[in-house]
Amino acid sequence: MTMAERKKDAVKEMLKIADEIYEDLKNSRIPELQVPSRTKANIAFDEHHRVWKYGTNKSTRSAVSLAGAYMLLRTIYTIDFIKKMIEQNKSSTLREMYYISEGWGEGKFSTQSDSDRLAEDLEILTKKLREDMSLRPEEDGARVMGDLVVEEITRKGEKRKIHCQDDVGDSGYSIPYNVEKEKLKFKETNAKIIMAVETGGMFDRLVENGFDEKRNTILVHLKGQPARSTRRFIKRLNEEKNLPVIVFTDGDPWSYRIFASVAYGAIKTAHISEYLATPSAEFLGVTPSDIHNYDLPTDDLTNEDISALKSELSDPRFHDEFWENEIKLQLKMGKKSEQQALAKYGLDYVTDKYLPEKLSEMGYEM
Amino acid sequence: MTMAERKKDAVKEMLKIADEIYEDLKNSRIPELQVPSRTKANIAFDEHHRVWKYGTNKSTRSAVSLAGAYMLLRTIYTIDFIKKMIEQNKSSTLREMYYISEGWGEGKFSTQSDSDRLAEDLEILTKKLREDMSLRPEEDGARVMGDLVVEEITRKGEKRKIHCQDDVGDSGYSIPYNVEKEKLKFKETNAKIIMAVETGGMFDRLVENGFDEKRNTILVHLKGQPARSTRRFIKRLNEEKNLPVIVFTDGDPWSYRIFASVAYGAIKTAHISEYLATPSAEFLGVTPSDIHNYDLPTDDLTNEDISALKSELSDPRFHDEFWENEIKLQLKMGKKSEQQALAKYGLDYVTDKYLPEKLSEMGYEM
Repeated sequence: MTMAERKKDAVKEMLKIADEIYEDLKNSRIPELQVPSRTKANIAFDEHHRVWKYGTNKSTRSAVSLAGAYMLLRTIYTIDFIKKMIEQNKSSTLREMYYISEGWGEGKFSTQSDSDRLAEDLEILTKKLREDMSLRPEEDGARVMGDLVVEEITRKGEKRKIHCQDDVGDSGYSIPYNVEKEKLKFKETNAKIIMAVETGGMFDRLVENGFDEKRNTILVHLKGQPARSTRRFIKRLNEEKNLPVIVFTDGDPWSYRIFASVAYGAIKTAHISEYLATPSAEFLGVTPSDIHNYDLPTDDLTNEDISALKSELSDPRFHDEFWENEIKLQLKMGKKSEQQALAKYGLDYVTDKYLPEKLSEMGYEM
Repeated sequence: MTMAERKKDAVKEMLKIADEIYEDLKNSRIPELQVPSRTKANIAFDEHHRVWKYGTNKSTRSAVSLAGAYMLLRTIYTIDFIKKMIEQNKSSTLREMYYISEGWGEGKFSTQSDSDRLAEDLEILTKKLREDMSLRPEEDGARVMGDLVVEEITRKGEKRKIHCQDDVGDSGYSIPYNVEKEKLKFKETNAKIIMAVETGGMFDRLVENGFDEKRNTILVHLKGQPARSTRRFIKRLNEEKNLPVIVFTDGDPWSYRIFASVAYGAIKTAHISEYLATPSAEFLGVTPSDIHNYDLPTDDLTNEDISALKSELSDPRFHDEFWENEIKLQLKMGKKSEQQALAKYGLDYVTDKYLPEKLSEMGYEM
């Protein structure tokens, strides 16, 4: 399907929602919409896609309450806005949509989290991606450095091939917010693995030390909790070029969540986990065991860290031997560490010793 | 001077500091170092460069106290580390330097803010840039889109010309962390102005609407409080290509500080304002008057906003009629607004109406 066809399809699906509400009203029924509950308790493993998706618990948005009625009114205004935007070949950030609702009278959103949630509801109800509705986040694209040629269709509709080492500066290639096939194609690569790196400092270290060239690795900067476009980029690259994905983060509960969102699917976006998650992605470190084995500089766990670790122990995505052992070990140690803490042993230690050792333990001889 | 010569020079200046301390000790004097106080009260206008620099107030780091003695010990270790790093042609993030100090025994830093402050002290004492000492921040490079050819010397020493519209994806060109002449040269441009934009959402909006092409503008994304490399990039582009710089931000006190750091110099980096600040940079908006004139959606000022505005009224950098009127107006209105709030009037309003009107008021007919 071309992008234009997908957008047309998204409009068709959205109009069905409007029709349903109209039919309800015409037949004197109180209109309502049902969407899955978006909580940790309501995610279930999808055996087919090997990712975590929403379970069967539902929330109802019903016009029986005033708040629910407003929500349905906003839904109709939003569908109308998206339809017009697609007709005019424009796109909008979620924040712009929030401000545009200023002109919708009673349909105005009171906070941006309301309008963001509605965009998610529409994705769930239509089974279409936000990108197909021309909505995009504020998030900045992450950076890529490695032996990979991408072909981007630019805003003017021209094809542009970019080699993510030879055609870019030392900052790498910036991932655009839309990375669907109609916008971005993967061409030649001789890389052997994809390494997703949490912090910019470590990404720049690996680039400076030439890790991408010496170890045939495509480096992708996650920039903390990765944007949808970054996760989609990694997933497509994994599938289309058959390259393993290794995740390298700090050693704390927030970083494990970053890994989970790459590998298993994030709770907020579980309705599209099969588009965003890379089930075969592996966690390299920094693990609590690494903190011990490599005698890394640490900080004490804060109370928030401890709650987050405990919450992970009850998170179905982390129910396996590796994570249970590591999380329990960390709670026992009471310590956390950062990937840049490896600099304790010098600036080359991470590329000359730590990463080769860890990759070899994981079965990768580079 | 080549980069190698500048680095050699920085080492020479740093060794002078070590010599001074050594001479003090040899002659039974208590060693001490003096650096300017880095406060709002101690900045003064430099008529020659037309930027704000530190005044004459000094702080003394003296070994007469235990804390001061540790500080001098760390200074010596840091100088030794930088010297070795330059000899090996490496560079380090400030965070890595903090971790590397783990191996310095009594010279270990207790927090990264201590090591960051020392890096600033060394800049001030040696009158060299941190970049010449091979130290760099974690900060990510900002993005550029416009009719401009840059020539980057890559990590492998190759020259690479990049046109910031034709050779990049829709995310634009990423500014590397080192933008000194030895790393980055500005080549051809037909642009008429540089527009520095605070948020990624607005940068992408201007790109999508083709503002860079239609109005001959080089768009630079500030990414909130801009990194040194971004400010240096803008300053060099302003001087070398003789292009006016227009700053477009949200309408709140934090955004006015962003403008001040671009135009006047930031308090934290006032020792190098003449490298980083662009005195001729002009503030386009969103101004408190715009909030009124364009009837923009607003939020109430928080207590922090009000204190920040009051603090700006006593900041010498804001002592002019324009800022005093606007800040007083905003305190009276009790409101703030965001650049994306212009979306209230539709997605094209900012490029079709607001920016052309404001630019024309400022004397730019594009």
